[in-house]
Amino acid sequence: MTQVFQPENPDFDTRVRHSFDLQKAMTTLGASIAKVEAGKVIIHLPFDDKLTQQHGFIHAGIISTVLDSACGYAAFSLMPKNAAVLTIEYKINLLSPAKGDWFEAIGGVKKPGRNVTVAEGEVYAHSGSGKKLVASMVGTLMSVYDREGIEH
Amino acid sequence: MTQVFQPENPDFDTRVRHSFDLQKAMTTLGASIAKVEAGKVIIHLPFDDKLTQQHGFIHAGIISTVLDSACGYAAFSLMPKNAAVLTIEYKINLLSPAKGDWFEAIGGVKKPGRNVTVAEGEVYAHSGSGKKLVASMVGTLMSVYDREGIEH
Amino acid sequence: MTQVFQPENPDFDTRVRHSFDLQKAMTTLGASIAKVEAGKVIIHLPFDDKLTQQHGFIHAGIISTVLDSACGYAAFSLMPKNAAVLTIEYKINLLSPAKGDWFEAIGGVKKPGRNVTVAEGEVYAHSGSGKKLVASMVGTLMSVYDREGIEH
Amino acid sequence: MTQVFQPENPDFDTRVRHSFDLQKAMTTLGASIAKVEAGKVIIHLPFDDKLTQQHGFIHAGIISTVLDSACGYAAFSLMPKNAAVLTIEYKINLLSPAKGDWFEAIGGVKKPGRNVTVAEGEVYAHSGSGKKLVASMVGTLMSVYDREGIEH
Repeated sequence: MTQVFQPENPDFDTRVRHSFDLQKAMTTLGASIAKVEAGKVIIHLPFDDKLTQQHGFIHAGIISTVLDSACGYAAFSLMPKNAAVLTIEYKINLLSPAKGDWFEAIGGVKKPGRNVTVAEGEVYAHSGSGKKLVASMVGTLMSVYDREGIEH
Repeated sequence: MTQVFQPENPDFDTRVRHSFDLQKAMTTLGASIAKVEAGKVIIHLPFDDKLTQQHGFIHAGIISTVLDSACGYAAFSLMPKNAAVLTIEYKINLLSPAKGDWFEAIGGVKKPGRNVTVAEGEVYAHSGSGKKLVASMVGTLMSVYDREGIEH
Repeated sequence: MTQVFQPENPDFDTRVRHSFDLQKAMTTLGASIAKVEAGKVIIHLPFDDKLTQQHGFIHAGIISTVLDSACGYAAFSLMPKNAAVLTIEYKINLLSPAKGDWFEAIGGVKKPGRNVTVAEGEVYAHSGSGKKLVASMVGTLMSVYDREGIEH
Repeated sequence: MTQVFQPENPDFDTRVRHSFDLQKAMTTLGASIAKVEAGKVIIHLPFDDKLTQQHGFIHAGIISTVLDSACGYAAFSLMPKNAAVLTIEYKINLLSPAKGDWFEAIGGVKKPGRNVTVAEGEVYAHSGSGKKLVASMVGTLMSVYDREGIEH
């Protein structure tokens, strides 16, 4: 994730944030976009009791939701203006229980492509005692060009 | 998913439903448990605008959240009373945009084990025009025995 | 894997077998193609001591090699004449130790697409005592059109 | 993969190399172990025409075979003397065609555990023009204790 990428769209920052704002799921979860770079996006999620599984940790699927958005927008940031992004598949490893004050989902492009982009990401739990890795993801994203209803 | 399993805990139905009720994330999403069998669990999720991504489909991560719960509880249904279940990892393929009136997440055990269980599942979108496969998952679940704070 | 597919290329059987014959890795492993249908391919692999890992089972990666070919050719069987197939990614679960007299890798298309196809497959170990599931795979394949050096 | 690990077995180097030597599949492929550290293993594979797929690249499954061994032995290097290692599952992304003079598979532990270890790895193709990333893997390994026939 230390590669330097040349975005095809100079307005990628605005475009990523606009699309993120359209994701009502992010509002529902309380997630916000913290950083946008070419090929890298960070999303923050505060702990919220309403997002927990049976042991009081954030549900693995909720962790995957913010991490999928971080990876997807990392990919989207490198795409041209007439492309939209769709997730084809991802794999997530849950490495530690998702407990903490807030969570940081970092998504980065591993291999960009005209049709298919591979991204990877990690989620860290932050608390008074520091930060801890709780999940890692590898995902495959597809560029969709000029399709009506899928513009953002 | 057509195997017949012998549950170690005869009260598996009650135990699965009790644990599901403790998942506040399910209440937040509006998901409910529709069926519990030994090694198989079905969860329903009505379409809700608040769960969408930027194109108005249900967010891939939200689809994965209900499917992870279905797979996890399918595994849990076969575990003894002193075990809890944690997701180690899963892979999800998003096969069609998640649009429809409601969604059916079906999780089933592929290979049970004392420490590690493999489960798989599918999500179907239901609408007036019928049902359509939107996602498939394969996941690995871990049994955790007699650990304080992780009993359900 | 019970879907019925319409192949775009009526000569798909010949084309799949021709491409398989070009895979020198299959010859090295001793694998042969046992069945070709539209969207489904079966490969056989006899047990061979030279393919084992440290406990005397067939190496997980070797199992994945024949299963990847089965899934890839299942996808390829539905592609038009000017397309070649490349594996983007796959996930494999090793469900039982790969021991037996011979192995049957069954690959089938889950969701065909012009650019991206999702396939899944299973490997069974056969021996005197019957057959046993040893691995399952989900993979994503890409169609590559009219690219020099990648025609088969 | 920059973590520092404390191996439970001080003779981990000898134990890893001994087990690797028992993998007849490695001999068949022509792979050799290049480096062993606590939590990290590197395997080399020269290009060999007999390992190719239909376009003349090394078969994705063969790439996964050496990378699975690198990840598995990275996990094994941190395990106690009475444990053996088995791969539960892995996901591999094929990022570029596997062509080159030789290949370097680097496996490292992401999260060690008594029963379950998560490892990740990458394969680089080396040629006169430098090196290129061709694949990345995430895998889950299981420790098996004191089981007859699975000691190495």
